[in-house]
Amino acid sequence: MSVETHRASSLEVRLAARRGQHTTHTAGIAPGHLQANLIVLPSRYAADFRQLCGRNTVPCPLIAESAITGCYDEVVSCIPGLSGDELLRKGCDLRRDIPRFMVYEDSQLTKSHCEDVVDEWTQDCVAFLIGCSYSFEAEHAAAGLSPRHSVLGKMVPMYRTRVPLCPSGVFTGGTYVMSMRPYRRRDVERVRDITRRYGVTHGEPIDWGWDAMERLGIKDLQQPDWGDAPVGQYGGRLVRGDEGDEDADVPVFWGCGVTPQEAVMKAGLQGTVIAHAPGHMLVLDARDEDIKS
Amino acid sequence: MSVETHRASSLEVRLAARRGQHTTHTAGIAPGHLQANLIVLPSRYAADFRQLCGRNTVPCPLIAESAITGCYDEVVSCIPGLSGDELLRKGCDLRRDIPRFMVYEDSQLTKSHCEDVVDEWTQDCVAFLIGCSYSFEAEHAAAGLSPRHSVLGKMVPMYRTRVPLCPSGVFTGGTYVMSMRPYRRRDVERVRDITRRYGVTHGEPIDWGWDAMERLGIKDLQQPDWGDAPVGQYGGRLVRGDEGDEDADVPVFWGCGVTPQEAVMKAGLQGTVIAHAPGHMLVLDARDEDIKS
Repeated sequence: MSVETHRASSLEVRLAARRGQHTTHTAGIAPGHLQANLIVLPSRYAADFRQLCGRNTVPCPLIAESAITGCYDEVVSCIPGLSGDELLRKGCDLRRDIPRFMVYEDSQLTKSHCEDVVDEWTQDCVAFLIGCSYSFEAEHAAAGLSPRHSVLGKMVPMYRTRVPLCPSGVFTGGTYVMSMRPYRRRDVERVRDITRRYGVTHGEPIDWGWDAMERLGIKDLQQPDWGDAPVGQYGGRLVRGDEGDEDADVPVFWGCGVTPQEAVMKAGLQGTVIAHAPGHMLVLDARDEDIKS
Repeated sequence: MSVETHRASSLEVRLAARRGQHTTHTAGIAPGHLQANLIVLPSRYAADFRQLCGRNTVPCPLIAESAITGCYDEVVSCIPGLSGDELLRKGCDLRRDIPRFMVYEDSQLTKSHCEDVVDEWTQDCVAFLIGCSYSFEAEHAAAGLSPRHSVLGKMVPMYRTRVPLCPSGVFTGGTYVMSMRPYRRRDVERVRDITRRYGVTHGEPIDWGWDAMERLGIKDLQQPDWGDAPVGQYGGRLVRGDEGDEDADVPVFWGCGVTPQEAVMKAGLQGTVIAHAPGHMLVLDARDEDIKS
């Protein structure tokens, strides 16, 4: 497919969302294109949030932000070598180009899964786009290492951990949220190699193996805080096999874009905060290969 | 003092080290100038190390690296808006411009506190300069918040923690090393504000308060892994005061430049690794205010 076709397809998804014609999740939509988490904050929190991302690049990979305060139709890129227009072409409408939004007032959820945030957007809003792991999942599939949850049509399991975020201003006391994909022990190094090149979408795993649960402070893999419980390679629960068995399942943990959302919720912010609804991401014009290192 | 005087004074320190005339530590030397940690690696490890820094910006703030592999007399800057020549003027000699060096062969220490590494430097060496917290300590002093260890002429205490580094390639299993400076509870927010502006020298604290020890996995503050034991405001050991007492000492923890050195030592690298000797830093031409955000 030509670049123009790809750009059209991402634009088409956004226009369909803008018109209220696409209102469901975006997994598998516009394959090859980056998707992003959206967080919109009152401008007085923008500097602290930008620094929170810079101090925690793995769980909070900042891709772009509003070109100026209040701007919803143009972004500036945080990725060297890629312009804001290449990431998300000018004329976007961050108030409408995502299928579903969440709205919080003074840290309380006031609207869930609404189709636009035109009424909530003010001249004081600053939008931030954060990387999402859909990108490297496509590359895994191409290498014959499809994440099991996607093969089974499930959501990736996500867990709160005790690993502290480096705080920034009002954003204190946060911890990493991690996603988990089980792989056979023999495949872990290949999986690390594939994801290493996706630095702006969480990059390589943070930890792996059964001992990782103790290090990360995760008690029960079958009880994720978000998403679906993991499934073993033979069905049923994920089971700890023999240490020496290269074919046994081991859990592999990545940084997760839910982390910055959790940090924002925890900060008790005053005013209006807007986010995408879980799984309903912003489809960007940039392609996965544009961000590979 | 003019910029040129400052540049001369940093150059003078480096030339004195180069000639073997300055062979002691660099604390308080060329005040106002940035100082940096040095790590020199075989080129095959450079990409993994660069990414380790990018994934762990708080404990491993990468300032600059060799302009090309094998280059010891010119660096490229990693700080936006500051050129390599502004950081460290061309014609430097990273093999000799530090008072004392450490040399490791196949991960074993083979030379301690040697005055140069001319014989060890090869065309395969890549040098990395990492930020150091001397900068923000000067700003604390200016605000009447001098770190106690520096007033007492002691070394800052440093601790291994259980907080995992995000791994990168060969660099796995590392954890944060943190430095600790005690402050009165009422001063913690001012201390946070001051250090927040020094993002390339570890920035604001990672954690603070007596409960932080449990979160970070530090058992005994009086037994640091490096540096001197901390001292309470009335002398003697640091004591946990009343929760509500705003004048009581609380420990405040920052990311520490020993972290990347520990990660390198832990990786079991083959070949020659060079580092500065503890406390014997590289004095840069850039000034503290050049890196303030």
